[in-house]
Amino acid sequence: MPRTRRPAKLAAALALPLLLSACPRTPCPAAPATTPEAAGGLVQVAGGLVGSGEGMWPVGRLDVIEATLAAEGRPLPLARLWAEDGGPAQAVVDLEGCTASFVSPEGLLATNHHCAFDIISRNSTPERNLVDDGFVAQRREDELDGHGTTIKVLLGFRDVTAEVSADLPEDPLERVRAVEQREAALVAACEEAAGRRCRVARFNDGVPYGPLPEGTPAGVRRFVLFETLELTDVRLVANPPLGVGEYGGEVDNWHWPRHTGDWSFLRAYVAPDGNPAPFAPENVPYRPAHWLPVAVDGVAPGDPVLVLGYPWATERYQTAAEVQEAQEWLFPLRLELFGLWIAELEAASARSEEARLLNAPTLKGIHNAHSHAIGMIAALRRSGLLEARLAEEARFRGWAAEDPARAGRLAGLDGIAAVLEERRALRDHDYLLRYLVRASQVLGFAHTIVKWAEERPKPDLEREPGFQDRDEEVIRREMEAAEKSLDLEGDRRVLAAFVRRALALPEGQRIAPLEAALGEDRSDAAVEAFVARLYAGTTLGETQARLGMLGRSLEELQGSSDEMIRLALALLPELDARLERAKRFDLALAELRAPLVAALGEFRGRPQYPDANGTLRLTVGSVRAYLPGDGTAYLPFTTVAGLLQKETGVEPFASPPAVLSAVRRGDFGRWVDPRLGTVPVNFLSDVDTTGGNSGSPALNERGELIGLLFDGVWEDLSGDYLYNPATSRSILLDIRYALWYLDRVVDGDALLEELGAGGHRPPETPSP
Amino acid sequence: MPRTRRPAKLAAALALPLLLSACPRTPCPAAPATTPEAAGGLVQVAGGLVGSGEGMWPVGRLDVIEATLAAEGRPLPLARLWAEDGGPAQAVVDLEGCTASFVSPEGLLATNHHCAFDIISRNSTPERNLVDDGFVAQRREDELDGHGTTIKVLLGFRDVTAEVSADLPEDPLERVRAVEQREAALVAACEEAAGRRCRVARFNDGVPYGPLPEGTPAGVRRFVLFETLELTDVRLVANPPLGVGEYGGEVDNWHWPRHTGDWSFLRAYVAPDGNPAPFAPENVPYRPAHWLPVAVDGVAPGDPVLVLGYPWATERYQTAAEVQEAQEWLFPLRLELFGLWIAELEAASARSEEARLLNAPTLKGIHNAHSHAIGMIAALRRSGLLEARLAEEARFRGWAAEDPARAGRLAGLDGIAAVLEERRALRDHDYLLRYLVRASQVLGFAHTIVKWAEERPKPDLEREPGFQDRDEEVIRREMEAAEKSLDLEGDRRVLAAFVRRALALPEGQRIAPLEAALGEDRSDAAVEAFVARLYAGTTLGETQARLGMLGRSLEELQGSSDEMIRLALALLPELDARLERAKRFDLALAELRAPLVAALGEFRGRPQYPDANGTLRLTVGSVRAYLPGDGTAYLPFTTVAGLLQKETGVEPFASPPAVLSAVRRGDFGRWVDPRLGTVPVNFLSDVDTTGGNSGSPALNERGELIGLLFDGVWEDLSGDYLYNPATSRSILLDIRYALWYLDRVVDGDALLEELGAGGHRPPETPSP
Repeated sequence: MPRTRRPAKLAAALALPLLLSACPRTPCPAAPATTPEAAGGLVQVAGGLVGSGEGMWPVGRLDVIEATLAAEGRPLPLARLWAEDGGPAQAVVDLEGCTASFVSPEGLLATNHHCAFDIISRNSTPERNLVDDGFVAQRREDELDGHGTTIKVLLGFRDVTAEVSADLPEDPLERVRAVEQREAALVAACEEAAGRRCRVARFNDGVPYGPLPEGTPAGVRRFVLFETLELTDVRLVANPPLGVGEYGGEVDNWHWPRHTGDWSFLRAYVAPDGNPAPFAPENVPYRPAHWLPVAVDGVAPGDPVLVLGYPWATERYQTAAEVQEAQEWLFPLRLELFGLWIAELEAASARSEEARLLNAPTLKGIHNAHSHAIGMIAALRRSGLLEARLAEEARFRGWAAEDPARAGRLAGLDGIAAVLEERRALRDHDYLLRYLVRASQVLGFAHTIVKWAEERPKPDLEREPGFQDRDEEVIRREMEAAEKSLDLEGDRRVLAAFVRRALALPEGQRIAPLEAALGEDRSDAAVEAFVARLYAGTTLGETQARLGMLGRSLEELQGSSDEMIRLALALLPELDARLERAKRFDLALAELRAPLVAALGEFRGRPQYPDANGTLRLTVGSVRAYLPGDGTAYLPFTTVAGLLQKETGVEPFASPPAVLSAVRRGDFGRWVDPRLGTVPVNFLSDVDTTGGNSGSPALNERGELIGLLFDGVWEDLSGDYLYNPATSRSILLDIRYALWYLDRVVDGDALLEELGAGGHRPPETPSP
Repeated sequence: MPRTRRPAKLAAALALPLLLSACPRTPCPAAPATTPEAAGGLVQVAGGLVGSGEGMWPVGRLDVIEATLAAEGRPLPLARLWAEDGGPAQAVVDLEGCTASFVSPEGLLATNHHCAFDIISRNSTPERNLVDDGFVAQRREDELDGHGTTIKVLLGFRDVTAEVSADLPEDPLERVRAVEQREAALVAACEEAAGRRCRVARFNDGVPYGPLPEGTPAGVRRFVLFETLELTDVRLVANPPLGVGEYGGEVDNWHWPRHTGDWSFLRAYVAPDGNPAPFAPENVPYRPAHWLPVAVDGVAPGDPVLVLGYPWATERYQTAAEVQEAQEWLFPLRLELFGLWIAELEAASARSEEARLLNAPTLKGIHNAHSHAIGMIAALRRSGLLEARLAEEARFRGWAAEDPARAGRLAGLDGIAAVLEERRALRDHDYLLRYLVRASQVLGFAHTIVKWAEERPKPDLEREPGFQDRDEEVIRREMEAAEKSLDLEGDRRVLAAFVRRALALPEGQRIAPLEAALGEDRSDAAVEAFVARLYAGTTLGETQARLGMLGRSLEELQGSSDEMIRLALALLPELDARLERAKRFDLALAELRAPLVAALGEFRGRPQYPDANGTLRLTVGSVRAYLPGDGTAYLPFTTVAGLLQKETGVEPFASPPAVLSAVRRGDFGRWVDPRLGTVPVNFLSDVDTTGGNSGSPALNERGELIGLLFDGVWEDLSGDYLYNPATSRSILLDIRYALWYLDRVVDGDALLEELGAGGHRPPETPSP
């Protein structure tokens, strides 16, 4: 059971070096260069670590990765990162879909600029524009309200497979509900302690996560309860200007060579009594049990790279049939919808500086997803994954046929194909319906309000996840926070675009209540008028109005004249039906996947890591170049010299004058890399990461912070579906670039001091 | 004095291996990797040869490059390439601005596809489109008329500095004329032998080219008489389709990674008596004194690369003031004019397939020049050349001030600055005037006709170069050849655009006779009407009409009602004045440059090579990668695998189906590179080359043909102004790609047999 001691009450402990040095910096046991040799023998894709960085290992399975690496001649004491009662990995926290890590005993957090972008943006006004100008708090009092931003510090976890999956009903929908209710009960019990946020995560590797409760069958999916401490006062400490933090913008997004200073610093605060509390002036810095010291020696090609983080999701065990659906339907549709969304928000942003600031956070996210879809379609085709899966499945079937005892091993494969076939009938309808209440924030609030009303009369544990009493505070915070990112004109344009798109759904998949609300005239003008009426007839654009509406009963809402509420009520049965379908399909796929993965592990003859699921994972790789295509190699470091090569003075290649001037005058301080002769900016590693890893700390073999992960590369966009040692690379900020900025470009002395990297001390003086 | 023996009568001699192996393929004496180390130690920019490939050495100074390389530990017997009486370098010929080389004893020539493009295009019709479909002559009778294409085979050369520069008059213009007349007299004497074409080339290195005649002062420019045999029946033997020969088109032009099969084969013919003769069915293949065997082993990273060719011009000794003018005025203006020109010819080409074929050769050239100007402007800025020259000139002045005996060393530097200042007053006027009669072919013919009439009454040797009796045949051939490349609608559009541009010249630089001819109305419509009148009122668009007009006297022409002739007559005084100015400035600069280069050689403490001047040069480098920018390395080879990566099926990335299918089925024959595992396409070398080197043979250390040079790289566009060991690279066709195509894609057996590379013989059988 998760430990109950309160980390906030612990004395801050200096994190001791976590890991023994695996091998001297150079030379390490020589890695045979493979593809590079074939490309002309001129690039040695070094070095250091043997093998690839594949695998996102749960902190409960560090023994497996430790053993695997030891067998490859890389003896790293990785299990030390998470012992029975926690460990250094606790310094790595979940930041609302990103990862952050404690880097001082005073609750200082390092993460990406793009992970803190909402906070930066919400603290910006046309008069005091932190987005464009950057920010460094000189004193604690200057640190800025995170407006509801939270982090979750992992306290512990426990396998609850037996509790969740014992004696489940036969009927699929009942089974779904039973699983949800048992999970909810476990979560509720876990959250009885103050400040706790808990969740049950599902793992699909089909092998025990921690000791397996007696009687649990092998090859089924596992349920693991994670207990976290949620801190709700997270403040902005420092961020670079957009011209550093987002240098290269959408042009460079997903691409190497990269020159992005994607870093920011936050600080977690708690009430004076040490308990989590929302923002309040009297709050004090949180004192974490573990924090990461900053590496003073930098990092070199071939060096080991350890990344801890909270990757959302991977699809490494999809069947050929699923890959084909993703390639031919899912990503093309996403591409289309994100394209519509971007066009409308950009048009709205052009109206004024205020509109631009409001829409910026949302646009940033959709832009990223849009680029992602483009690349994914190409990458999936290029990867040959579908052909490879078909070939492996044929071999797998052959293997299963070899031995009658293996007959059951194919159940997963065949079952998944049947589920896909059934799901196909309404897949466009369901996808568009879901995006309708996601793309329009106001319709989204309306839906939340009516769904809340629908769920609230039920016993808490029988409600839809996300609509339990514990969720009310989150919903209210989100509704408040929207104040800083909701542009009604942009929202209206987006909804109109999605309604137009819904009218083009294939026969048999149309959204009936939406078309009924619209009436007979389906012209663009009619859609415009319909949507204009919705926005004119709703008060949900105002924070107090939507907060006031939350908690009304269905009966009260049915009497409401609010046009957006009326539409949400009309859509509710469709959305509920969609949700039920999705759950049934997801359950079926999940129940089929776990035995499939177990059988594949048997067939492949090596341990399989579970797909990413938003829980803490470790991946181990090295600093490593790659060959993006014929006649070209991407080297593992970029530098401020390359920044000057790229600079055009026009966004997204417009560095702040202070950065340019420091680079031009060669004011590099102690941050020069001796091999590069200048300050490094970004580096490449073959660690295995995905969305959610943004902001993840990268550690050297001594457990010191060498960088922050912030992106993948174009050639690896299909990385969620397969890891390719030749091209699977992540892009990381070299922490020296951030330190240089704080030292030589702005006055960041206090922050450097806190990081143990005081810029004015000679490097030989050890930091306290 | 040039030898008088007739090579055509010589028995064909097998070219013996020319050079001793400098070092085994691998390992060669390790070259310390420099910049690459700094870029992260992951790229070893190999290898093999120490030092850089800088220097285009005249074949009369091979002793200097041989000694320099020997001092660097590279003992290559380069002087053997050209002995007193000729040598293997004679296999390398001048192909009208390109380079070609004999590759069989039967007069077979290898050159670039783009160098033979005119011939290919002129032999193409919409019905039999050799441009799109490619061509391989199966028998001698199938080889196609070169329509006046000529090559020049170097017979010998002789320093004539004393004869040209003794006792020249003081007056600049008289001095110009005296030099021209003395050169003309030398050329005329040289050309008395049948089939000879001679020229006096000027060298600006200020040191003797061959033994210096007694009494010649040091540090003055040298004049060298070159004697060549001109062969006027050069036929098309084989060319790949445009989808191979120009793969990547303007998108990839000047860029790596590259995948262009830029090769073609021609054959030189002579009359049955062995004398040069125009195309005639009874002609027989020319038998060269020397030809180059094809390398069967291929080439590897770090291997030595020797390139012989006819580079047109470099500007390696421009002063800071000249570099600044090029950067800020010359290239921006060129960019503008080529842009106008391209737009009009492309609009005209869109009319029909016939128009496209007619305009294609011209467009190809201008496109190339346009890309070049874009890159040059950026490259000059990026290179920091101006700043470097300013700094060197400051040090040079300091050095000169150290010793009173060096006082005269600064004369060149200061003198050149004064000439530039004077030239500035009419530079726009003069530049546009020159392009007016160049961009419009018809106005160009008219100018040639009136200029011919102006010059012809003078004694032959006192005429303008290009207008002597010896030139008449060339002019007539050009006027005939235009039949295959003159599209009157395109020509008209171009002239209109240039007239409009001329109207925008700065005050004081307008072209008065043009504006007088146009009349008061300067509107676009008026220009259109004016130009339409010119074309309606001229017969020069017809071959016979322009040939008939050539030879008429000035008086006859002044009575002509041909509108284009009338405009040319009006422009003649302006063009003559421009020519005189240009000559005066050129003379002054040349007379100042030679002593400047000599002084710089003294100051720099190493031998200076003369700027390229269209004479045969040798450059020695190696196969070598480079770093184009931060975080990126360009590897030295591309392959057919990369062709598939680039392929879009849309021009310029549309390979012929037969090529794709051979690559996809892995039908590589004996042409697989063992390291690359597939067929190489192009490779990089640090040899020192420029325009005119197109088609140049690249030889290994045994004097065997390993490739054909065809392009430079974007990062080296300022290469004419400075050689940079880090980024000066040339792009070469790997000859194995051409041989593979002939072997596995089409039926090129006869050609392979003649090249000693018969595809069906096992590789171990030596070729005859």
